[in-house]
Amino acid sequence: MELRNRLFVGVIGPSNPSKEIYELAYKVGREIGKRKWILVCGGLKGVMEAVAKGAKEEGSLTIGILPDEDKSLANPYIEIPIATGLKEARNLIIVLTSDVIVAIGKGYGTLSEISFALKYNKKVFGLKTWNKELPIIKVKSIKELIEKILHLAY
Amino acid sequence: MELRNRLFVGVIGPSNPSKEIYELAYKVGREIGKRKWILVCGGLKGVMEAVAKGAKEEGSLTIGILPDEDKSLANPYIEIPIATGLKEARNLIIVLTSDVIVAIGKGYGTLSEISFALKYNKKVFGLKTWNKELPIIKVKSIKELIEKILHLAY
Amino acid sequence: MELRNRLFVGVIGPSNPSKEIYELAYKVGREIGKRKWILVCGGLKGVMEAVAKGAKEEGSLTIGILPDEDKSLANPYIEIPIATGLKEARNLIIVLTSDVIVAIGKGYGTLSEISFALKYNKKVFGLKTWNKELPIIKVKSIKELIEKILHLAY
Amino acid sequence: MELRNRLFVGVIGPSNPSKEIYELAYKVGREIGKRKWILVCGGLKGVMEAVAKGAKEEGSLTIGILPDEDKSLANPYIEIPIATGLKEARNLIIVLTSDVIVAIGKGYGTLSEISFALKYNKKVFGLKTWNKELPIIKVKSIKELIEKILHLAY
Repeated sequence: MELRNRLFVGVIGPSNPSKEIYELAYKVGREIGKRKWILVCGGLKGVMEAVAKGAKEEGSLTIGILPDEDKSLANPYIEIPIATGLKEARNLIIVLTSDVIVAIGKGYGTLSEISFALKYNKKVFGLKTWNKELPIIKVKSIKELIEKILHLAY
Repeated sequence: MELRNRLFVGVIGPSNPSKEIYELAYKVGREIGKRKWILVCGGLKGVMEAVAKGAKEEGSLTIGILPDEDKSLANPYIEIPIATGLKEARNLIIVLTSDVIVAIGKGYGTLSEISFALKYNKKVFGLKTWNKELPIIKVKSIKELIEKILHLAY
Repeated sequence: MELRNRLFVGVIGPSNPSKEIYELAYKVGREIGKRKWILVCGGLKGVMEAVAKGAKEEGSLTIGILPDEDKSLANPYIEIPIATGLKEARNLIIVLTSDVIVAIGKGYGTLSEISFALKYNKKVFGLKTWNKELPIIKVKSIKELIEKILHLAY
Repeated sequence: MELRNRLFVGVIGPSNPSKEIYELAYKVGREIGKRKWILVCGGLKGVMEAVAKGAKEEGSLTIGILPDEDKSLANPYIEIPIATGLKEARNLIIVLTSDVIVAIGKGYGTLSEISFALKYNKKVFGLKTWNKELPIIKVKSIKELIEKILHLAY
């Protein structure tokens, strides 16, 4: 399938996660990679690094939308670094470029991305993330996450 | 006092609020105006319009940070329209330009602004807004809001 | 006249100008101030500082659209600092917020602003600035600048 | 070679070029494609479309940094559409994401991109584009363009 027609999965999460959340993000990345979905993330540390590592190991294309002016600041698992120079305003670009959003863990940047995704009517899947009061699709395992993406994103 | 040294109060809220929320925003605007604080908002309809109307009637300078390229789209109570052309990414500018944030009502754009404010360690005061899981300063009345701003923002 | 209905004059120029260009920008600022036009600029050093100093001394409202996240980085003559965090992308906001643009001196940032202004069909007046190949209105003196703004901007 | 270590070539030019400029951009795209460089462009019509068509036909990865919120607006030769919603402010992202810039033809958007590239000390190669007063590397043929990129960009 042409790259453009693949599912662009935006994965968002904090840059300083617990070890548990980091591992979870890594495993989500591997599942994304196995399906050759395109990974979109913020390109830096923490969840962004873990998910890109997993996805790249399995052969997915990994895109990092960086807050910085210098693309060399992307983590080593990003193949397509997009340097924006826009700081946190780049969070909107992550959302707009993705077909669906997966939130893993909690951070305020993560919450801004969930907000933008809901504003633009994009589906948000959540693993151990913000969810009170929010219409996100809560999942309890990676298996459930992938099943629900397959069911709802097409 | 020089304009620059006045308190810049960012007021955020939905563009299609209930009548109750619109009235509340209008009254908050008047209290901001009485203290000659500078009002920063998104410049469009709903809460943005109501708060600007109240603030302007009492003599405050009103700034509208617009998502549009055309500054004439600002509501009639905005004296300083800032045209950004950045769509929802302009929400970050509202937060960075404000010393404190007051959230009135609930919207996803509002939640993105609360998120940015917390990310940048700005105090967020909330009236009938998102608050579960969030370290915002909840207030139950306009009187309490103004007292807490006076107490905490200086 | 209401602030909003005044002419918003965007003045652009390098942050490290010659002494001659700095003086010129200061004098342009004074003329803007005498007419109570609203000054829009980039809020930092050099031409941005000189023109804001002149405009503020004569009583104009001065707006600085900053590339930074921190509004305290505005020069001391800015009364309304707008913190964007967008680096050079903020140049577009300066142009969109202004009714007309005055370019003084040469810089690559200045040239990007002239380009955006021409793209959006805004009139650009130029004093000792980029002009080869460009449809800007070249003026040779501050007197001529003000006359042409009065003639063409209304 | 890993995608990330390939040369990211930003090609900029007007959306409504002459037939001659369109053809030139197409041929430049093919040369980029033969070398498996990564193409970065604005993702829309005209020069952006022609260069992406050529590059894609030869097997290059093509990235389109769109001004729009909707990535489906990318031209059909873009494999990685990045939706920014930032209008002309997205021009900065094209420049920051590219290692070198090639300008083909003249437009004000193009000139803003040249300005940003020079501001960030990126090399700009020019074919029938803006050049008076500007330190861009003028080339007269596609052969000369490729030779100079090979000589100067590494």
